[in-house]
Amino acid sequence: MGEFELIERHFVRPTPRAALGPGDDCALFTVAAGQQLAVSSDMLVEGRHFLSTVPPARLGHKALAVNLSDLAACGAEPLAFTLALALPRADEAFVAPLAQGLFALADRHGIELVGGDTTAGPLNLCITVMGQVPAGQALLRSGARPGDQLWISGRLGDARLALEVFRGQVALAAPDFEAVRLAMECPEPRVALGLALRGLASSAIDVSDGLLGDLGHILRRSRVGARLHLPALPCSAVLAAQPRPLQHECLLRGGDDYELLFTAPASRAAAVREAGARAAVAVTPIGVVTAEPGLCAVDEDGREQVLPARGFDHFA
Amino acid sequence: MGEFELIERHFVRPTPRAALGPGDDCALFTVAAGQQLAVSSDMLVEGRHFLSTVPPARLGHKALAVNLSDLAACGAEPLAFTLALALPRADEAFVAPLAQGLFALADRHGIELVGGDTTAGPLNLCITVMGQVPAGQALLRSGARPGDQLWISGRLGDARLALEVFRGQVALAAPDFEAVRLAMECPEPRVALGLALRGLASSAIDVSDGLLGDLGHILRRSRVGARLHLPALPCSAVLAAQPRPLQHECLLRGGDDYELLFTAPASRAAAVREAGARAAVAVTPIGVVTAEPGLCAVDEDGREQVLPARGFDHFA
Repeated sequence: MGEFELIERHFVRPTPRAALGPGDDCALFTVAAGQQLAVSSDMLVEGRHFLSTVPPARLGHKALAVNLSDLAACGAEPLAFTLALALPRADEAFVAPLAQGLFALADRHGIELVGGDTTAGPLNLCITVMGQVPAGQALLRSGARPGDQLWISGRLGDARLALEVFRGQVALAAPDFEAVRLAMECPEPRVALGLALRGLASSAIDVSDGLLGDLGHILRRSRVGARLHLPALPCSAVLAAQPRPLQHECLLRGGDDYELLFTAPASRAAAVREAGARAAVAVTPIGVVTAEPGLCAVDEDGREQVLPARGFDHFA
Repeated sequence: MGEFELIERHFVRPTPRAALGPGDDCALFTVAAGQQLAVSSDMLVEGRHFLSTVPPARLGHKALAVNLSDLAACGAEPLAFTLALALPRADEAFVAPLAQGLFALADRHGIELVGGDTTAGPLNLCITVMGQVPAGQALLRSGARPGDQLWISGRLGDARLALEVFRGQVALAAPDFEAVRLAMECPEPRVALGLALRGLASSAIDVSDGLLGDLGHILRRSRVGARLHLPALPCSAVLAAQPRPLQHECLLRGGDDYELLFTAPASRAAAVREAGARAAVAVTPIGVVTAEPGLCAVDEDGREQVLPARGFDHFA
């Protein structure tokens, strides 16, 4: 099967929301008046962002999920996306489930694949997602204020724990491994929560490079510091059963979590919990924003330590 | 130098047109009322879309040029772009000129890099470009009508001739090689021409996979045929000096031309020439649209032959 047939069969779908869908030089669509367009691109490379062991359906899901997670962190409503795909060969057994996983998530968020590109090359997926947000209402990294509470959605660290199993550093019982592997391969973008936090959160980011690194982005942009309460960090029972140093490593520097890290005035705590309930996702207060710069953490024994607010560097 | 420093130094620029530029989870910008957003993505893979011999500044230029070419083929005004970049290593000697070539072209078109992604991996550039076009005025592939003239901008075939030199199949004198190499490595997107053709061209596409293949897209979408006049195809003196079979191969199946192939009513020929003059690019009539499907070509000796309207398949 050639390139055009492969695309036609697996990636071309009706796109009723777009003014012009895939198949011409550009896709066309309309942004509602008073709305700003929110755009984000993420590239997934085999061996870096996913292992060759990932089932293609989960890979399709994840490639879109990590992009939707960026929209979520802006409080934007997803509209459409493009996919550029480099494949080692035109392999339908790989492409068909990839497309299924991709469209299953797209359908749940009511968004359309409006264009893209396919080429031969080392496996690489590049998705650009577009959303809209009322002018002035986007959640930014720069709005955290001293005294704000620091919140996290869902749970942290399972994706990193799964990676350690794949690396042979940790052994888990099969059902435990399946659970954390799902967190790594099928992250759930917190789009509904991002929308519910508009007008409520003072800043937000999605945790993709590890809590410390992504918190660091908020702190630098907002010119504030933070005190993190380590025992409050939400984690799975599987991770909670691991030795504490590994737990902390996974929770603080794990990466691939795709949870929303956000701040809100302490007076709005009840509204934040309500927003979490509306979005059907747990939200947990994990610390407080401070006027003094820097990041310090209080551990299980009440000891304070200063932490470096740095994340994952793809080239380090 | 780490990932963030490398991005900060070479890719982060002021973005006065964007409501929010790079550095947050999404970029934000406003699409004018009554305008539709035009979006296109292209991925460039080393060894497929460029050779390792390409100077990085030209690669930066080309990665954006091929995307702008898609906007041109829609008649859209460029607004902004995102760049996702996979690099084998954080090599400033490569990244600095790459960024220079990219921004030099971006600046000429008044567009801003509003976001993207950097990662380690086999060299791969994925650009998504966004433009705007008044609702209903986009140039589509589907509007060609029997009797329309078929036009091409600029010249065809030099990029393919350069590729044959790199492949060792053709030998050229050094200045001739430099000239065709420039066509391959530094294509000029016909944005101004695309804008000038709004309301004038009945269909348009950019020639990236070879004239026959891309003409085939117009013919299928428009449910028409075409008669191509081979001696009319515009080519450089360097290509004109090659044996006729090689000439025809380069002109018809060359690819990487990034010229606009478009149709317009014969009655509008003078206006089309004027549009070319305004955009400072040659426009040449190369045939006519026919009601009978299929593609036939009349060669230098007046002989007719039926041609397959198929282009380059990345997996063939």
